[in-house]
Amino acid sequence: MMTTNPIKRVCVAGAGAIGSLFAGHLDSVAVSTVLTRRQEHADQLNAQGLKVSGKTNRHAKVLASTNPADLGDVDLVIIATKASAVEETARSMAGHFPHALVMTVQNGLGCEEVVARYGAWPIISSVTFMSGNRHSDVHVEYELDTATWMGPWAKRDASYEQVQQVAALIEAAGLKAKAFPDLLPAQWSKLIFNATVNSVAAVSDLPHVRAFAERGGLADLGHLVFAMMDEGKRVAAAKGIDLFEDPWEMNVEATSHGQTGDEDYAHAPSMLEDIRARRLTEIDWITGAIVRAAQEAGVPVPINETLYRLVKAREASWKINKHNH
Amino acid sequence: MMTTNPIKRVCVAGAGAIGSLFAGHLDSVAVSTVLTRRQEHADQLNAQGLKVSGKTNRHAKVLASTNPADLGDVDLVIIATKASAVEETARSMAGHFPHALVMTVQNGLGCEEVVARYGAWPIISSVTFMSGNRHSDVHVEYELDTATWMGPWAKRDASYEQVQQVAALIEAAGLKAKAFPDLLPAQWSKLIFNATVNSVAAVSDLPHVRAFAERGGLADLGHLVFAMMDEGKRVAAAKGIDLFEDPWEMNVEATSHGQTGDEDYAHAPSMLEDIRARRLTEIDWITGAIVRAAQEAGVPVPINETLYRLVKAREASWKINKHNH
Repeated sequence: MMTTNPIKRVCVAGAGAIGSLFAGHLDSVAVSTVLTRRQEHADQLNAQGLKVSGKTNRHAKVLASTNPADLGDVDLVIIATKASAVEETARSMAGHFPHALVMTVQNGLGCEEVVARYGAWPIISSVTFMSGNRHSDVHVEYELDTATWMGPWAKRDASYEQVQQVAALIEAAGLKAKAFPDLLPAQWSKLIFNATVNSVAAVSDLPHVRAFAERGGLADLGHLVFAMMDEGKRVAAAKGIDLFEDPWEMNVEATSHGQTGDEDYAHAPSMLEDIRARRLTEIDWITGAIVRAAQEAGVPVPINETLYRLVKAREASWKINKHNH
Repeated sequence: MMTTNPIKRVCVAGAGAIGSLFAGHLDSVAVSTVLTRRQEHADQLNAQGLKVSGKTNRHAKVLASTNPADLGDVDLVIIATKASAVEETARSMAGHFPHALVMTVQNGLGCEEVVARYGAWPIISSVTFMSGNRHSDVHVEYELDTATWMGPWAKRDASYEQVQQVAALIEAAGLKAKAFPDLLPAQWSKLIFNATVNSVAAVSDLPHVRAFAERGGLADLGHLVFAMMDEGKRVAAAKGIDLFEDPWEMNVEATSHGQTGDEDYAHAPSMLEDIRARRLTEIDWITGAIVRAAQEAGVPVPINETLYRLVKAREASWKINKHNH
């Protein structure tokens, strides 16, 4: 058994909604520091702290900077940027934080590999089900108070004890966390769920409404969602992964809230928000990860390939249509 | 051999871009009448005639009305509405035009069946490759001067001689036409082409640019277009239809115009225009027709099913998002 050092100082890299929720709670159990991309963001956090409303009401004191050297020798880094920003963040961390554990918390697969290229840190994989609404650089609303799941990344051994320690710290700070000896079954459940729900929402412009689970007539969207998740499940099976939860049941559960057609509060998946804001999506890390794994495993996934290419085409359309209109 | 009566009086039902092109030329060889949906449209046509610019320059005298009884005993009706408006048009024609041939010119499959329910007219199937840009109720620009292909509808025998007579009339009026003893091979070539290009454009927001034919990297859209057309070709083969043209070659040809990245004039397929304008699309007649034919023939078409459901979902999003935003 590896020994674990106490976690006294934490750095959250990337203070979007998820990062702000971590930094906004962890100050109660550790020194909470934040690595930002923008100087103005760091300045505001240093001046005003970080307010959390919603499921909890807190006002956290944080130390923020765009430069890792300003943040001290931290024991844990939580990289909470979008997948597309992980490389830039990890590159800026190279040579810093020699004693830190690093935990990635992106959607999809593959960010751990990127981090590992920039330092020898032990790495913890995680997926989070909590959600927040970022009202400003210094105010996040805590919406869904669901858990973050974490486990040792297989290729760079953070120990299960270290993972349990991080989970306990996050729980002590007032968030929900669960440690797994092997995260892959849970990670793949969420991956398959996200690969389908996010990409279908992104190209249909539909939030995650009950139509995603309806399988009556030939045109019903639930047929597509079911068949696409089924492809993902066959890829997981080919890789020997025994899923933690069935993605289709997750989909049925998530869309069964509310009654009699009142879908005003249906969740807009992050990829749909990205498309609406004309931001590049995380498709390469999510649906793209399934398509690549399927190729390696020799499993046909025509529907995943189709949605992958459609979202990429939608991103490409912004450049074409800028000229045409 | 059936005898053919001279065509002296023509009615074009639906004066969108295609209908306006027919009505705007046929006055040179017959009495040109127009059945409109809106009274104001009929009034303007009666007062101002119909101007054609672009590939030809004409000013046609037409007789227009919202009521078939006002248009006389015509020898030929060309139904040029959208597929979704064919039923309403055919219903309004019931009991009128007892001596007419009827020609349908919609995208997709199945409009002939709808027309046949409302009268005993011999029916001609057609597909058109010409395109126009409708500047106003009384002015259409003739853009692509490509042909309209026509043939006897198998279930209600207009004779091949009648089809040839109509093709000759249209040619004499200055448009391009070609008669086929059996239109199915050409109709299915265009159906497969449209089922793919229209639906992919509609959900990706991309006009028909070169990306539709690119098959380099895994994410390239040409892989999707190729695989989706291949499904359609398997359905046609299962139905014993020997395609007139290869849809993939039509796609490569159509996207190969222009040079070095200047795609400013790429064609926005009608389904993309419908989506942008939040009008219901013709998806049920186009991609939906392939999905239904595939079910009957027992041919798996997962990509066609996917695009069919995505376009339907996009249409459904307008209602959901009206409430949410």
